Amino acid sequence: MAKDFTTRAENYSKWYNDLVVRADLAENSDVRGCMVIKPYGYAIWEKIQAQLDKMFKETGHQNAYFPLLIPKSYLSKEADHVEGFAKECAVVTHYRLKTSEDGGVVVDPDAKLEEELIIRPTSETIIWNTYRNWIQSYRDLPILVNQWANVMRWEMRTRLFLRTSEFLWQEGHTAHATKDEAIIETEKMLGVYSDFVEGFMGIPVIKGIKTESERFAGALETYCIEALMQDGKALQSGTSHFLGQNFAKAFDVKFTSKEGKQEYVWATSWGVSTRLMGALVMAHSDDNGLVLPPNLAPIQVVVVPIYRSEEQLAEVSEAVAPILEGLKAAGISVKYDDRDTHKPGWKFAEYEFKGVPLRIAIGPRDLENGTVELARRDTLTKDVVPMDGLVESIPALLNDIQESLYNRALKFREENTFEVDSWEDFLVKIEEGGFLLAHWDGTSETEEKIKQETKATVRCIPLGVEPKEGKCVFTGKPSKGRVIFARAY
Amino acid sequence: MAKDFTTRAENYSKWYNDLVVRADLAENSDVRGCMVIKPYGYAIWEKIQAQLDKMFKETGHQNAYFPLLIPKSYLSKEADHVEGFAKECAVVTHYRLKTSEDGGVVVDPDAKLEEELIIRPTSETIIWNTYRNWIQSYRDLPILVNQWANVMRWEMRTRLFLRTSEFLWQEGHTAHATKDEAIIETEKMLGVYSDFVEGFMGIPVIKGIKTESERFAGALETYCIEALMQDGKALQSGTSHFLGQNFAKAFDVKFTSKEGKQEYVWATSWGVSTRLMGALVMAHSDDNGLVLPPNLAPIQVVVVPIYRSEEQLAEVSEAVAPILEGLKAAGISVKYDDRDTHKPGWKFAEYEFKGVPLRIAIGPRDLENGTVELARRDTLTKDVVPMDGLVESIPALLNDIQESLYNRALKFREENTFEVDSWEDFLVKIEEGGFLLAHWDGTSETEEKIKQETKATVRCIPLGVEPKEGKCVFTGKPSKGRVIFARAY
Repeated sequence: MAKDFTTRAENYSKWYNDLVVRADLAENSDVRGCMVIKPYGYAIWEKIQAQLDKMFKETGHQNAYFPLLIPKSYLSKEADHVEGFAKECAVVTHYRLKTSEDGGVVVDPDAKLEEELIIRPTSETIIWNTYRNWIQSYRDLPILVNQWANVMRWEMRTRLFLRTSEFLWQEGHTAHATKDEAIIETEKMLGVYSDFVEGFMGIPVIKGIKTESERFAGALETYCIEALMQDGKALQSGTSHFLGQNFAKAFDVKFTSKEGKQEYVWATSWGVSTRLMGALVMAHSDDNGLVLPPNLAPIQVVVVPIYRSEEQLAEVSEAVAPILEGLKAAGISVKYDDRDTHKPGWKFAEYEFKGVPLRIAIGPRDLENGTVELARRDTLTKDVVPMDGLVESIPALLNDIQESLYNRALKFREENTFEVDSWEDFLVKIEEGGFLLAHWDGTSETEEKIKQETKATVRCIPLGVEPKEGKCVFTGKPSKGRVIFARAY
Repeated sequence: MAKDFTTRAENYSKWYNDLVVRADLAENSDVRGCMVIKPYGYAIWEKIQAQLDKMFKETGHQNAYFPLLIPKSYLSKEADHVEGFAKECAVVTHYRLKTSEDGGVVVDPDAKLEEELIIRPTSETIIWNTYRNWIQSYRDLPILVNQWANVMRWEMRTRLFLRTSEFLWQEGHTAHATKDEAIIETEKMLGVYSDFVEGFMGIPVIKGIKTESERFAGALETYCIEALMQDGKALQSGTSHFLGQNFAKAFDVKFTSKEGKQEYVWATSWGVSTRLMGALVMAHSDDNGLVLPPNLAPIQVVVVPIYRSEEQLAEVSEAVAPILEGLKAAGISVKYDDRDTHKPGWKFAEYEFKGVPLRIAIGPRDLENGTVELARRDTLTKDVVPMDGLVESIPALLNDIQESLYNRALKFREENTFEVDSWEDFLVKIEEGGFLLAHWDGTSETEEKIKQETKATVRCIPLGVEPKEGKCVFTGKPSKGRVIFARAY
């Protein structure tokens, strides 16, 4: 299956695209910039959704649903927001087609909308327009709402999962009585994202704050988690925004405080998207195909029978039955692939390519010896182990794979994070890839110049690090502390 | 809370709308025809989704995701389909806005799309265009895929849940090697819908087949489930379509059969939508507000403390703790409402209005007597029962409520289903509402005349009934069997 598969070293970008398509995660559609998420890819997304949804609910959030279409004028109500999002929108101008003379269909000019509607690129405007009616008193606060939805941002250059015009995501939109409470919420959700990406996706992340130029359009502060991919480029994996009172003011959302005063409401928003699927692929997979962390693998264990006759298959299947039953009872997702349309070797290659964490093979000789062959996808190692105690050993083994993937990714990041103190060094290191910890003078001008010269951006000002003063790597001017530079997806 | 609430007898339509809005299920947005589904309503939809999704997976289906936008020309490829859907589409014509001189935004005329894109009204066309690349051989079949998505059909007169421009739904799209297999799938999914609506929503349904004029645009046969609402009108609650080879031919989807022949693929599609939320409200609720079947209630049991002092609250809370713990352990969704912002009477009214199936109230006197007050929403009855054994009794009580709601709705339907043999009788009965079992000559002309004269349509030709010949209630011509007429949502 993976014979003519591009390696990472040959062409990382082609490796990624080929992998996503050939492992049945997603493919491009005929509709420019829109992807089809195939069943195997969608099954991973469903696991991501289920776990995040659980974590959102455990932190007190509820789901709701707001309209897909936003009146054009709403976008203009928050000045920064329109600047950031209006440029790349799908615009609905008509609401009817009619049959044309050649039997096709054409837009009916009589069905022109009075005001154009925009397919949501993000929902702050429509949601804050709605919150105006939901919020009168401090008793109505906080509002802790999340939405699972599709959004659209027109993109000229697209890449499966990483940058598509339509993508799936969740967007949390919360409303609070005080600034402090909103900031606590913003930071709490960054923590949820970080816990999820590290604990379930097995990808270590740096928590930080965006610089002004990389901030969400309309936010006072954007928090982010940044991960390092195997090619040394950064991938922003989630953002949480403290919006201040910007949207409340734009949509006139006030509440009566306990003290009886009319005040504007404080806001946050936070989101992760199908982009995480791209991070998942790029953080762990190898030249043999996908490598999936057990916590998100649609199939955690696959069992493949080896046989030469119907009788042998029957014998193997009989021995396999209690293994399948035991694993299912332990809550493990197991597949028994006894299809006679493909040979074992083909199946081994297929499940290896699709990143199934554990493969069990059983043949007639195993039946004689009371053993199975157990193969790990992450290490590509095989062991012959006793059938006795096999089922009981699997949960610990899956945990071990989950942890190993995280540790491997963490080691990679540590080996590719550098303190850089001279501009010469910066220019060399940025070509090699990785996170560069460097001093920066804090100005957007310097940031822009560094970006133009090296394509590197400030990924974040890291949180949880005691900042030490220094001199900007580019201008030599005073710096309050090191920030993380990298080229990014 | 429900003081100025319209009764069903006063104005059924206003009762429905007021109930949906005031019970926090949904509300109209500023975007014409698009609703906001509020957290309480969305929580019910999530329960509907979770159960259906489980049933789809148990019957071998997988989820996937296809683009929101469909090229205009795709709609024209299946002749009946374009006729049925092209009339009411949201059309995307541009992909960019630009800042206008007055500081607002206008459509950028330079960003006009070469071919307009349609927001999906349903996804047969884009999906069958994709399946062409997925299907080569009989080994690739069947494809059993479902999509959870938002769709849009422009509507001039909208009603929350029942008829909105944007709605949420699932659409199954399957591909098969043989006609028989596709028909079996179509019928199987109708069965899944019927089992779900009866078993989880507590609404009895009639399974049947649509007449030609009510058939899905592009289908050879449309199967449906029809439910009777409390005002005597029918509500189509789910449809399953046998599409024959229409879409395979329109999109050139062929496969090589086992015998090595090139054949067109057979198709089905099936869907239910947020319309089910409307059915849920209209089937069970009463003049005191929502009545929710326990299987779909976001809160199944609410516990309200009665107290006059902090000390009393502490005592009550202590007694309540093991009840909450026991119910949660039994998988029951329970809420303890100890907010001090509202009085018990207000809370009683609130949860009654929101249809919470069971309410437990505990005050100081209950603590002395070792009792609680237990109130059922469906019967509006209250009992004082011993605290001892309370937790253990709840699951059976919830089951009883679930069954009672179904039985009550079934009784209502039986009392409002009539065999009608004369046109005079038909005219009288149709005004009273209900299902009319009448003979029909099988022509679209007669169907149309009856509709014009009475607003009644053939809801379906019922399945599982031995048809007996007779004479058409309208024309007196021969009829193959009785069909179901009703006015419908």
